[in-house]
Amino acid sequence: MPITTRTTPSRHADRTRDEPEVVHQILDEALVCHLSFIVGGEPRVLPTLHARDGDTLYLHGSTGSRPMLAARPDGLPVCVAVTLLDGLVLARSQFNHSVNYRSAVIHGRARLVTDATEKRRALAALVDHVVAGRSQDSRPPSDRELAQTAVLALSLAEASTKVRAGGPVDQPEDLSLPHWSGVLPLRLVAGDPESGAEGVAVPLPPYLRTYRRQR
Amino acid sequence: MPITTRTTPSRHADRTRDEPEVVHQILDEALVCHLSFIVGGEPRVLPTLHARDGDTLYLHGSTGSRPMLAARPDGLPVCVAVTLLDGLVLARSQFNHSVNYRSAVIHGRARLVTDATEKRRALAALVDHVVAGRSQDSRPPSDRELAQTAVLALSLAEASTKVRAGGPVDQPEDLSLPHWSGVLPLRLVAGDPESGAEGVAVPLPPYLRTYRRQR
Repeated sequence: MPITTRTTPSRHADRTRDEPEVVHQILDEALVCHLSFIVGGEPRVLPTLHARDGDTLYLHGSTGSRPMLAARPDGLPVCVAVTLLDGLVLARSQFNHSVNYRSAVIHGRARLVTDATEKRRALAALVDHVVAGRSQDSRPPSDRELAQTAVLALSLAEASTKVRAGGPVDQPEDLSLPHWSGVLPLRLVAGDPESGAEGVAVPLPPYLRTYRRQR
Repeated sequence: MPITTRTTPSRHADRTRDEPEVVHQILDEALVCHLSFIVGGEPRVLPTLHARDGDTLYLHGSTGSRPMLAARPDGLPVCVAVTLLDGLVLARSQFNHSVNYRSAVIHGRARLVTDATEKRRALAALVDHVVAGRSQDSRPPSDRELAQTAVLALSLAEASTKVRAGGPVDQPEDLSLPHWSGVLPLRLVAGDPESGAEGVAVPLPPYLRTYRRQR
């Protein structure tokens, strides 16, 4: 990916990965992103759902009515961050404590998706991003529902990632301190599916029996 | 908490909770936050660690050198979002799909913590936020390490939360569709602790044997 002023890290340059595959993997695994934009000269950030289609990131507009309102023909300047937590890194010194993570940050101008075909495809991608296969096993939006939903599109042309993995880096003089040192792995897991109050007449679909976020 | 223009929701007002306890619980449970600010007229957002001390939120500056550089005597305008995912909500229609979540958004001006005593307290709080009890079982920062670390402080005076819980809301006419409907609960769990490459001479501390994020 091209290196720009905005994607050049000011710290921990050794953690930077700029292969498109790494950006894609992080976006595909993470359930939510954080979308930031400017309103009245002040920063805003909101969580929302995203889905990747090739080199385009689609963002669900339900939590982002403010950016929708501000959307302009030339696009709304946004910055999107996606963060996956892989573990807590405990060193003997507080200073060397860290976190194992994979994060992606995308800069660009988001455009409002107005073409009905693209919008339907993007909404199906959002559903499938959350639960792979679900768009084929649910009712697609009506025209009225489609009109009520806002979708933003953002190019992945300007994206960067950071990845920290591995154990703690203790300083040699700290190795003899009487403190445990290592990594506590973290992962997001699904519990048992709970059917709705009205009851469900169909069996639990396979994609929910084996749900996993990690690819 | 006071309602301001910035904390008045434009959508899903029914999901808004403004009790300080809810803000505190969300901040205390979430491991990371997303910090947004403006650089050169453009939005930026980065993940970082946070810790709450009463009505003050401390933010670790390691990933935020840019806001550090821009920090001004009157404070840097920031917006911080913290998001906890509790479950995926699958309705029979794609339109009624949702996510169970608890999120907090804080607006304000962040100040750089310069007082050494406050900074040491804030760094201990950051360590204890990630692993409760760890600050008493690790080496505190040296003066040199303290100088290398940046900490931001942000008042929680202007904060809002959104909470969505419960099952899907299917439209009556969708109830007979042949699709499963319900919630897939999600939670962040810790795996088995892995000690570092150099080996550890002390037993696994109790706070890692029973590590849980949920309070």
